[in-house]
Amino acid sequence: MDENILKLIEERKFSVLKTLLSEMQPPDIAAIFEDAPEKDIPIMFRILPKELAAEVFVEMDSDMQQLLIEAFSDKELHDVIDELFMDDTVDIIDEMPATVTKRILQQTDSKTRRMINQLLAYPDDSAGSIMTTEYIDLKKSMTVEDAFDRIRKIGIDSETIYSCYVTDAGRHLLGIVSVKDLLLNAKSEIIGNIMDENIIFANTLDDKELVAGLFEKYDILALPIVDKESRLVGIVTVDDAIDVMQEEATEDIEKMAAILPSEHSYFKTSVFDTYKARIPWLMLLMISATFTGAIIAGFEDKLSELVALVAFIPMLMDTGGNSGSQASVTVIRAISMGDIEFKDILRVLWKEIRVAFFCATTLVSVNFIKLFFVDNLLMHNFDKGQVILEICVVSVTLFCAILVAKIIGCSLPILAKKIGFDPAVMASPLITTIVDAVSLIIYFTAARIILRI
Amino acid sequence: MDENILKLIEERKFSVLKTLLSEMQPPDIAAIFEDAPEKDIPIMFRILPKELAAEVFVEMDSDMQQLLIEAFSDKELHDVIDELFMDDTVDIIDEMPATVTKRILQQTDSKTRRMINQLLAYPDDSAGSIMTTEYIDLKKSMTVEDAFDRIRKIGIDSETIYSCYVTDAGRHLLGIVSVKDLLLNAKSEIIGNIMDENIIFANTLDDKELVAGLFEKYDILALPIVDKESRLVGIVTVDDAIDVMQEEATEDIEKMAAILPSEHSYFKTSVFDTYKARIPWLMLLMISATFTGAIIAGFEDKLSELVALVAFIPMLMDTGGNSGSQASVTVIRAISMGDIEFKDILRVLWKEIRVAFFCATTLVSVNFIKLFFVDNLLMHNFDKGQVILEICVVSVTLFCAILVAKIIGCSLPILAKKIGFDPAVMASPLITTIVDAVSLIIYFTAARIILRI
Repeated sequence: MDENILKLIEERKFSVLKTLLSEMQPPDIAAIFEDAPEKDIPIMFRILPKELAAEVFVEMDSDMQQLLIEAFSDKELHDVIDELFMDDTVDIIDEMPATVTKRILQQTDSKTRRMINQLLAYPDDSAGSIMTTEYIDLKKSMTVEDAFDRIRKIGIDSETIYSCYVTDAGRHLLGIVSVKDLLLNAKSEIIGNIMDENIIFANTLDDKELVAGLFEKYDILALPIVDKESRLVGIVTVDDAIDVMQEEATEDIEKMAAILPSEHSYFKTSVFDTYKARIPWLMLLMISATFTGAIIAGFEDKLSELVALVAFIPMLMDTGGNSGSQASVTVIRAISMGDIEFKDILRVLWKEIRVAFFCATTLVSVNFIKLFFVDNLLMHNFDKGQVILEICVVSVTLFCAILVAKIIGCSLPILAKKIGFDPAVMASPLITTIVDAVSLIIYFTAARIILRI
Repeated sequence: MDENILKLIEERKFSVLKTLLSEMQPPDIAAIFEDAPEKDIPIMFRILPKELAAEVFVEMDSDMQQLLIEAFSDKELHDVIDELFMDDTVDIIDEMPATVTKRILQQTDSKTRRMINQLLAYPDDSAGSIMTTEYIDLKKSMTVEDAFDRIRKIGIDSETIYSCYVTDAGRHLLGIVSVKDLLLNAKSEIIGNIMDENIIFANTLDDKELVAGLFEKYDILALPIVDKESRLVGIVTVDDAIDVMQEEATEDIEKMAAILPSEHSYFKTSVFDTYKARIPWLMLLMISATFTGAIIAGFEDKLSELVALVAFIPMLMDTGGNSGSQASVTVIRAISMGDIEFKDILRVLWKEIRVAFFCATTLVSVNFIKLFFVDNLLMHNFDKGQVILEICVVSVTLFCAILVAKIIGCSLPILAKKIGFDPAVMASPLITTIVDAVSLIIYFTAARIILRI
């Protein structure tokens, strides 16, 4: 399909192309534009029907949007902007350089411009930043028939018509009526009688993650957003809530891997930006490994007699680290899904201690057998005369390391959340560094006591 | 709020409770049930209005559903089941023991029972397993007015009325009409003229993750599902797609932390199930650490002369592991978001190599300064006479380990996906184990060459 289309572009068969593109979905058309030669993009865009063109425009990445805006006449720019929903316009402006933004704002009327500037002013992570201002508002005194008339009049420009919002003269939100309610009631019925007054809503300054969570919890298609004075100022639709959920999941995953969250997709992030997102944690964790180094260095004079024990350091560190990150990652995800709160900390600890006990018992048993038969009898890795004692040192350390790792791994994210830190950064890498240090201390202490050195 | 309600239950003030609960949202009522004494749950459930009761029932966890079903009379069970959507009924049955399932099926008519059995037969991860069979179907020849009549007739039992599906006599899907289209057209308009024939749809056996991806890409509220013969058999609604997205993100996160994915939330998973989900990877990774142990053991006789170098093993392993997991986790997420495919592998490699180069240069420089001033001058950790050479060994290893880690980290998930494996298991723990072994080999090789031992 894609190659056919590129061939049509090459052969300048724009009328065939027009028919073909008109039958496709906006995100698929935008993907074709990504692959098309840059010089052909404005002409390809111009053959699209007006409404479809705007929908395709929204799906493009900001580089291509900018390229098109710069190719547009003022009239063309005006037509595209006119078709966009307010939240999409604001998203586009957010990514454009100042000169382009200025040109866009010049093509909007003063009311729209005021609205755009207001939406741009909301903090990045707020409900206000993802809401749109095009919705259906009704009055309590209207009949169902009046409501349908209003939907027919302003529905074409609303992002969703399926939830209608009933407001008073001061724009305070009184209730919600769905189109389903309207259709299933008599035409003469009064809106005030059929509206649902148990409203789920959010405030403009609420965190957008919280807003997305409401969609998941209540299975809603749109959420009204009110300002500090409880006036309805916009709505968030489910498609935008989905984008927020996916962004938040990606951010959590990045933080768990010791990466600062990035705004753009993989290939849209420059090498330097990727470097900037990764280096701080790498640096911090590298320097904090000084502690583990210092612990080993402090034991150095004894190590030269016990080099056999050095061979088990990676296994002990990795198993401890993996045990800890299993616990921390599980707890972090459960916190963001709302399953774990601070009050559950003892319940979590008790569960993790039991899991740790079973994991540790299994691993120590298997490891004991492996050490005795493979490392001892087969590879003669231990120092003669104290084989069993050395195996004991490894086993005791393994057991304690797993237990400590699970305890640290499950409790740090909850504590971090409690003191207002992001639980997601308390994941594998940080836990690993802490667990490494603890495991080494246990290892050398066990060696000192059991081997009497 | 919650405590007030528990007090009302205690004082048996059920009529006040009824008023209070009737004004709340189903998920919030279900949460109150979770905290209520078990013996009061059936009576609390009985005071809810019929429709709300069914909505609350769907939000409960399966233990409580079972408890209620066992307390229900046949009539009560029939009433609840009757109000449920087909997909919810199937989800509930899926979790119940055989005796309860049998009782539920006895309360449904033969047509519903056939439908339930058909839905139960779809594989767990398929589109069929999350679809519902209640939707609005229209005929091409209908007018807009006919369509509204049909919506009024069957709309109350449909999961969504906002997308209507136009089918022929053989139930083949011909087009889609939204209620918005219906409202914005004249009553006499023929459906065949206004329906959209560019249909986004999926097959019953398509992976549900793919289905959820379509919602995200195309911003749709419902997706029609067709069988092998292209007949419309059901629809998936956006709320179910959201649940799938969140489940998939959780599964990816679990796999990245070397945990087998679990079906239930944190506290709903038993200690033994948590143990079973965590032990296989811990065991595998512990045993594979035998390699790192063997590498160190092979160098053992030289280590006794060079114990200073042992102190840097944790730092080198951790930094390599962190660098690798940054790359792997970023690539894994990009693969599941559809940003990276197999054909991009060289582009990914080229990007990661450049990022690795910058990260390695920065870290090696900082580390060099730290080693020279802190470890050497302050702590005298190096062997006299070859301070600079030993620092060089550490620096060369650090540089190579970061480079190798990023290359392995970014390519393994893409290769895994290509050969049909799950890319998410190629995350931190596995990468760490591989990178550990490689770093140690580089370390000892560098030591041998630079220190001539």
